[in-house]
Amino acid sequence: MATLGDIGLSAAINILSAVIFLLAFAVLRLQPVNDRVYFPKWYLKGLRSSPTRSGAFVTRIVNLDWRAYIRFLNWVPDALRMPEPELIDHAGLDSAVYLRIYLLGLKIFVPVTLLAWTILVPVNWTNHTLTKSEVNYSEIDLLSISNIPLRSQRFWTHLVLAYAFTFWTCYVLKQEYAKVANMRLHFIASERRRPDQFTVLVKNVPPDPDESVSETVEHFFLVNHPDHYLTHQVVCNANKLAKLVKEKKSKQNWLDYYQLKHARNQSQRPMMKTGFLGLWGEKVDAIHHRTAEIERLSKEIAEERERVINDPKSIMPAAFVSFRTRWGAAVCAQTQQSRNPTLWLTEWAAEPRDVYWQNLAIPYVSLSIRRLIMAVAFFFLTFFFMIPITFVQSLANIESIEKKAPFLKPIIDHGFIKSFIQGFLPGIALKIFLILLPTILMIMSKFEGFLSISSLERRSASRYYIFNFVNVFLGNVIAGAAFQQLSQFINQSANEIPKTIGVSIPMKATFFITYIMVDGWAGIAAEVLRLKPLIIFHLKNFFLVKTEKDREEAMDPGSLGFNTGEPQIQFYFLLGLVYAVVTPLLLPFILVFFGLAYVVFRHQIINVYNQEYESAAAFWPGVHGRIIFAMVISQVLLMGLLSTKGAAQSTPFLIALPVLTISFHLYCKGRYEPAFIRYPLQEAMRKDTLERATEPNLNLKAYLQNAYIHPVFKGEDDDEDDKIIEKLEETVLVPTKRQSRKNTPVPSKISGGSSPSLPDIQENSHPY
Amino acid sequence: MATLGDIGLSAAINILSAVIFLLAFAVLRLQPVNDRVYFPKWYLKGLRSSPTRSGAFVTRIVNLDWRAYIRFLNWVPDALRMPEPELIDHAGLDSAVYLRIYLLGLKIFVPVTLLAWTILVPVNWTNHTLTKSEVNYSEIDLLSISNIPLRSQRFWTHLVLAYAFTFWTCYVLKQEYAKVANMRLHFIASERRRPDQFTVLVKNVPPDPDESVSETVEHFFLVNHPDHYLTHQVVCNANKLAKLVKEKKSKQNWLDYYQLKHARNQSQRPMMKTGFLGLWGEKVDAIHHRTAEIERLSKEIAEERERVINDPKSIMPAAFVSFRTRWGAAVCAQTQQSRNPTLWLTEWAAEPRDVYWQNLAIPYVSLSIRRLIMAVAFFFLTFFFMIPITFVQSLANIESIEKKAPFLKPIIDHGFIKSFIQGFLPGIALKIFLILLPTILMIMSKFEGFLSISSLERRSASRYYIFNFVNVFLGNVIAGAAFQQLSQFINQSANEIPKTIGVSIPMKATFFITYIMVDGWAGIAAEVLRLKPLIIFHLKNFFLVKTEKDREEAMDPGSLGFNTGEPQIQFYFLLGLVYAVVTPLLLPFILVFFGLAYVVFRHQIINVYNQEYESAAAFWPGVHGRIIFAMVISQVLLMGLLSTKGAAQSTPFLIALPVLTISFHLYCKGRYEPAFIRYPLQEAMRKDTLERATEPNLNLKAYLQNAYIHPVFKGEDDDEDDKIIEKLEETVLVPTKRQSRKNTPVPSKISGGSSPSLPDIQENSHPY
Repeated sequence: MATLGDIGLSAAINILSAVIFLLAFAVLRLQPVNDRVYFPKWYLKGLRSSPTRSGAFVTRIVNLDWRAYIRFLNWVPDALRMPEPELIDHAGLDSAVYLRIYLLGLKIFVPVTLLAWTILVPVNWTNHTLTKSEVNYSEIDLLSISNIPLRSQRFWTHLVLAYAFTFWTCYVLKQEYAKVANMRLHFIASERRRPDQFTVLVKNVPPDPDESVSETVEHFFLVNHPDHYLTHQVVCNANKLAKLVKEKKSKQNWLDYYQLKHARNQSQRPMMKTGFLGLWGEKVDAIHHRTAEIERLSKEIAEERERVINDPKSIMPAAFVSFRTRWGAAVCAQTQQSRNPTLWLTEWAAEPRDVYWQNLAIPYVSLSIRRLIMAVAFFFLTFFFMIPITFVQSLANIESIEKKAPFLKPIIDHGFIKSFIQGFLPGIALKIFLILLPTILMIMSKFEGFLSISSLERRSASRYYIFNFVNVFLGNVIAGAAFQQLSQFINQSANEIPKTIGVSIPMKATFFITYIMVDGWAGIAAEVLRLKPLIIFHLKNFFLVKTEKDREEAMDPGSLGFNTGEPQIQFYFLLGLVYAVVTPLLLPFILVFFGLAYVVFRHQIINVYNQEYESAAAFWPGVHGRIIFAMVISQVLLMGLLSTKGAAQSTPFLIALPVLTISFHLYCKGRYEPAFIRYPLQEAMRKDTLERATEPNLNLKAYLQNAYIHPVFKGEDDDEDDKIIEKLEETVLVPTKRQSRKNTPVPSKISGGSSPSLPDIQENSHPY
Repeated sequence: MATLGDIGLSAAINILSAVIFLLAFAVLRLQPVNDRVYFPKWYLKGLRSSPTRSGAFVTRIVNLDWRAYIRFLNWVPDALRMPEPELIDHAGLDSAVYLRIYLLGLKIFVPVTLLAWTILVPVNWTNHTLTKSEVNYSEIDLLSISNIPLRSQRFWTHLVLAYAFTFWTCYVLKQEYAKVANMRLHFIASERRRPDQFTVLVKNVPPDPDESVSETVEHFFLVNHPDHYLTHQVVCNANKLAKLVKEKKSKQNWLDYYQLKHARNQSQRPMMKTGFLGLWGEKVDAIHHRTAEIERLSKEIAEERERVINDPKSIMPAAFVSFRTRWGAAVCAQTQQSRNPTLWLTEWAAEPRDVYWQNLAIPYVSLSIRRLIMAVAFFFLTFFFMIPITFVQSLANIESIEKKAPFLKPIIDHGFIKSFIQGFLPGIALKIFLILLPTILMIMSKFEGFLSISSLERRSASRYYIFNFVNVFLGNVIAGAAFQQLSQFINQSANEIPKTIGVSIPMKATFFITYIMVDGWAGIAAEVLRLKPLIIFHLKNFFLVKTEKDREEAMDPGSLGFNTGEPQIQFYFLLGLVYAVVTPLLLPFILVFFGLAYVVFRHQIINVYNQEYESAAAFWPGVHGRIIFAMVISQVLLMGLLSTKGAAQSTPFLIALPVLTISFHLYCKGRYEPAFIRYPLQEAMRKDTLERATEPNLNLKAYLQNAYIHPVFKGEDDDEDDKIIEKLEETVLVPTKRQSRKNTPVPSKISGGSSPSLPDIQENSHPY
């Protein structure tokens, strides 16, 4: 049992390390040489350029202006100063709403903390259950619910406060949902014209023996959306091409490195080995070898490009269909097209940069099977991941290493190294797994077949949260690996489970307080320092950078990382809600986390992170849902805890709470979620009309023509690209001669011919 | 424990009563006087009229033709002869697909029965566990899984067959889902023009201080669906008017009765008492009194009509909006209209006769609260309904009756009456409750706010099924009231529950066999006899009928009663799937039920039932889902049963079954369910184009104008109606002067003025 002193010590250590990180950051960020590490966002926006060349060499690297150091903490007010609308403009709605999650934490927990400390702490403190008892206890427990005697009437206080906290949280959640939904609609409405507003992704185009995919799509939409269809873009399977381009880029980097090396030391030609990772194999002249390789790849890329464009097999049965109006696109995205609901599936096209191209051609049946496999795999990952890790740990102990590699024995047997290995090795397998976990989850989501990066991240976030809940929260509360919990849950009765967990909750408060300080406080402070990007940037800068463009590329702004960041925040919501009634002492620690993280991430979003996509806060329903989940868990656990406290007469009153919370969730789901899934026709019509009035002569077709070209065709060689785009256009716009009417319904006979003249007619059909 | 002999006796009794019912039916249906009871469907269709007047009086009542009696069983082949397309034409798709549920039962269980009897019965029979043991057992158990010794390798047979049955059931279910989805789409596609194809129900029209509901609706749709909006019909709150009309009709019936009485016995004027139910109060001349009452009601009805039409408060914030094309209606029904997802809610309008008018104006928030209340209420109804009934039973015993009413003592104390009361009274409260249950569930669904009779019935059916599952199935298997089960489930561990239930399953086989014979065999045979409608028809015929029209009204064809019939079938699916592996002896009884019920209901649907609405088999997803639920339950229970049999090594193989079944369900849901919820644009466009080609000059507006008038305005007095409809049309079509633009978005400024000339322009916009 940790005493208040222990916690104080831990707090001191963590505060100290946080302060060191923050100080290091405050100093490092002022050095011009680090400018691209700490302000990449501004470089990307073109609002900041490399430090002036005019000054001395020293001033280009180190900041010698002492006045700057006096104001070294100015980044905090700077980060807070930018108003939200400007922030949305600067970094996108996703980032601005992401910050609101931290604010939401503050909004929920500041009143909860105040109420808990003014009412609950005195109620808990003024008992003598623990001091009188023989039990081993700590001072912290005196402030917690453990200090209340069995069958005390004081439990009513906790009950009433559980209600109060629930109502307050629901109220804040509702306000926030309404606000975010409004921000999203406003953002979408006030956005400038974007291709995805007019475009719908059509999947599972049925194959037609007589027509190409492009022709089938065109005929289908000319027939079924005659007044609105504008153009379309078929999807090519350019995965191999993308791989080749990536490989070429990596080789180019190596070539640059060797050339720079040669330039610095003219006397010696750099050599390299051709084998695996350059570790063995024939030794050759590096620059020659790399140049040859790059030439070979360039040729392969050109061939592959030709193949992708000309081979009908590389055209996937999917297309981006663009419409004349936002109204037409909104209609097509929300309706069912064909009587077979697994063909002609339509959905809003994601932003071009958000599209995850690899998954565009997965057929329907395969999708369901993939989902099933991933659900089963995730179940095993969550509950049984400890088994292989324990196995690896059992192999990786000193004895087995000595057996396998006897020559290492003298080194290992050395006292310090031995203790280091013994302390370190067992944990390393687990640590590596935990570091890899977000990547594993991301790969699982990719396998499941999501079509945009944003939805991949949302899915990974929700899985990461479940993993955290089972393995970090439950794993620590009831102390056991997840598969042990699982068997315990199966063998325990439904009303015993919350009791088992509920009873352990107050005892684990100190552990979680320490966790918050390490993970939340010091971790966030380390985030702002960006140690890894700092080192990598300087390494690259030294070895690779020749031109300003190279330096641009060496910069790694990173991004928000919704799939790892959001589950972390959610974990604090869970801790806060669970401990609010049980051990209010934990709440201030969470408040500090939310406050610090808000400032740090606001700074990072403004100055560092590059926005990878804009999903217009599509993640909010998930955020909301997970907080609701945490509330229900906290209520059930409190019920379990109170029922062991002999407060049986008050427990029934708690049953209403989860019911109310869940129905509140259903209400919110119906009330606000459509704003995140569907696009109201009224809004679409309003924007269309406005645009028609302000820009009557807009050539929308030209605007949309190349919006959804695979990014690999938008590569470095611009002139080559144009050719390809032209070529693609040709294939798209070729006047179609129809051999078969098999796939086209009756009306096509009449409408087919009039297709070229259709635009003129449609123009007249909108008299306003 | 029932022996085979007991079952045989029970079978004999039930078969005998079924045969008696069928014989009585065969004879009664041949009598001309019963013609309207057994063939009302043909009267309603106008294909049959009352027996010829030409014959003697006797032949009009009794059938004296002896040849008819020889062919008295001909109704069976007659019922089976009508081919399915004709049946759909004759009785609608709902009825035809409803019959397919019985066929589905046969398709699933005939092969299952054959397989189970050829493989399982020998495997079970050739053991001597029970004969050697001391346990009290019956011959039936020798055929069941109970006869297999613990830890026998023979359990692998059961395991393999569980897989085989699951795959077979899934295969049949998938075929059937595909078939029904196809039938539905084909039915919708080949239907003649119907108002609901063009019409969308709009709910939650936002109030506007300056505009009437009608004006708001018109402006909104003119702006947001300019090319497709045609007309609309506001919804009036005519509930009070409907009540008055109903009251008048009942009084009219009484008047008819007295007039007929007076006509038969001219000497005496019929008298009546004015008090409650005519039991006390002043005695008055019945004909005068009733005539006066009817006059008063007619006046009130006229006033109420005026009020409904002229009072803006009686206009509810909902409207039926009709579109120029099916495409336009399909688009509007499937999309979100306004940025506030609780306003301008659109959904497909049900058929005019299917609309449940009372619920059209429930606001969104109220709906969620109603749903919550009903969910809680249904939970209590299911698990705690026994408590009040036990309470009533404890009051209604002989002692308390003697105490309360001592004067009854001499009668009650009589031996026979006493034993009758003692045997009868305790059960009567339960019986009354069970008879009222479908009505209670229907009222609950109505309170929940569903908008069509078909959806009310679907909801009630699913709740009735859950109630049956908990109280009939589980209640009999683990023998205890539902609330006792509930507390048992809460206090038992998750893996104990299937064991507890699974172990009792084989022991209850005889009970369920008897249940099938009583409820399934005799019950279905009683259905065909229609005893209640027969008696009521003859009573009415004698007391009320004066004209042919009266006789028409005295006829009560009844309807399919999806909300009670479907859960009954589903219960047999549940029994069949659960017992298929455990006690295959039960399967033939279920086969007989499905076969008999199929013939009987096919006859009833062809000759008797009047179709109340046509939902185009919208109930199939529910039917499918409940069979899946029964499969999962059967698999979990088999798992529990096998794990107590020491067949632990085979149990893990069963875990995959529910996972596979559920993912099969999810696959089917994605693959076929949209066909039951959404309307593909391709189909809509095809029908529109066809119609435009065949009937270019159709006046759709006139066709749709009065389709969705409240049925009370389509009452008996046709001339009065026309006036009202005209009046309503006026209110609808009055040229609107707009005082406020608050509710109309920007474009209305331009489009508002052009609204009258819009139709002409739109006509041009479809060049084909």
